[in-house]
Amino acid sequence: MPVMTPDELEAALRGIGAERYHNRHPFHRLLHGGKLTRGQVQAWALNRYYYQCQIPVKDATLLARLPTPELRREWRRRLEDHDGDRPGTGGVERWLKLAEGVGLDRATVESTAGLLPATRFAVDAYVALVRDRSILEAIASSLTELFSPTIIAERVSGMLSHYDFVTPETLGYFTPRLTQAPRDSDFALAYVREHARTAEQQQAALAALRTKCDILWAQLDALHHAYVTPGLIPPGAFVPDERA
Amino acid sequence: MPVMTPDELEAALRGIGAERYHNRHPFHRLLHGGKLTRGQVQAWALNRYYYQCQIPVKDATLLARLPTPELRREWRRRLEDHDGDRPGTGGVERWLKLAEGVGLDRATVESTAGLLPATRFAVDAYVALVRDRSILEAIASSLTELFSPTIIAERVSGMLSHYDFVTPETLGYFTPRLTQAPRDSDFALAYVREHARTAEQQQAALAALRTKCDILWAQLDALHHAYVTPGLIPPGAFVPDERA
Repeated sequence: MPVMTPDELEAALRGIGAERYHNRHPFHRLLHGGKLTRGQVQAWALNRYYYQCQIPVKDATLLARLPTPELRREWRRRLEDHDGDRPGTGGVERWLKLAEGVGLDRATVESTAGLLPATRFAVDAYVALVRDRSILEAIASSLTELFSPTIIAERVSGMLSHYDFVTPETLGYFTPRLTQAPRDSDFALAYVREHARTAEQQQAALAALRTKCDILWAQLDALHHAYVTPGLIPPGAFVPDERA
Repeated sequence: MPVMTPDELEAALRGIGAERYHNRHPFHRLLHGGKLTRGQVQAWALNRYYYQCQIPVKDATLLARLPTPELRREWRRRLEDHDGDRPGTGGVERWLKLAEGVGLDRATVESTAGLLPATRFAVDAYVALVRDRSILEAIASSLTELFSPTIIAERVSGMLSHYDFVTPETLGYFTPRLTQAPRDSDFALAYVREHARTAEQQQAALAALRTKCDILWAQLDALHHAYVTPGLIPPGAFVPDERA
């Protein structure tokens, strides 16, 4: 494997997004196109909550490994975004409001009782990656945020136009993400461009981003299998009201 | 929660198997009933290889935490079963022979390159459970072996009668499991009956077995979604020849 220039590396990272980011998954096309029932949207919100609530765990895990005040200050902002500054603020809280907005009970969502096991396994794999792999790989795995503003714009406009049970307040989670994600991914991309110098480091960074895409994709596969086609809900997982 | 007697606890453990063990999954009904193509059987063998090759990792992880020679001797037998005594022996090797028998290339299988990401996440969750939870929970999670002799008998007779590409030699993995699994689960069941004394310990043991069933079920969900219905193979995963 030859060593890439930083621009070539960035192009390869962006190529992974073009191939593997979960905007290409049929479940998202159904979600954004208004093709899901309220129960299916609830299943999405309930499962995605586990991803949201583990994001600050993931960021704190990485924070604890970062060696300098500069890096820790940068990464600490992510915790502020997700955990907020006081009760009732932050991304995790806004996701709970989204879940309530689509008709779920907050305590049920927080309990993670009806979670698909595959959601838990995929999200836990993300925390494990950030704990067990190099700091370069941990930072590279966050680069799916390069691709998120497009999907967020599609999601918000699609869901608002297609679902009468979805309001702008319900989707309040996404508004700050449109500025937070580019700010965060600018930093992470600059870090990877600078620190992935050998061919081995560059391949490791690419593999970490591929794994992160797999983690997001596997969550949608599990939702699609349980709640869309063939609609085979695993034992113990959330059963939407309309099917009960 | 009241404290159960050992017999009540055993009945509750067996009840989890009756409800959640993966013999109830439609993928196994298709596999054993001769309803899969050779490519679908290959996908099963390739993905299940990762489970097989991580079983001794799981057992070594637990072995390292066991406090007495008695317990370690008992658990060491599991490593002997899976890793063998010399090259060409042991359960992992026999699984590779199964994979070759259904037409896969050994090096491809060993590389785990075409693995479904969801298989990796589920199997890694099993190793993590055994590393991170109590010894009681780790041992209880092995109790799916209480339920495996039935499924093995069904699988071997079903696959031999329905698939002309499957021979008794190909399925040689399963023969020793019919005696190893009951021996191992007898020990694990006796351990759990004796050591799960408080209501909390009993509930933790039951939850660990439930999680293990989820780990097995999620692997079949992922196979079913990718290779049966809707047949949506995730980016980068194994594509059977018949669809290439």
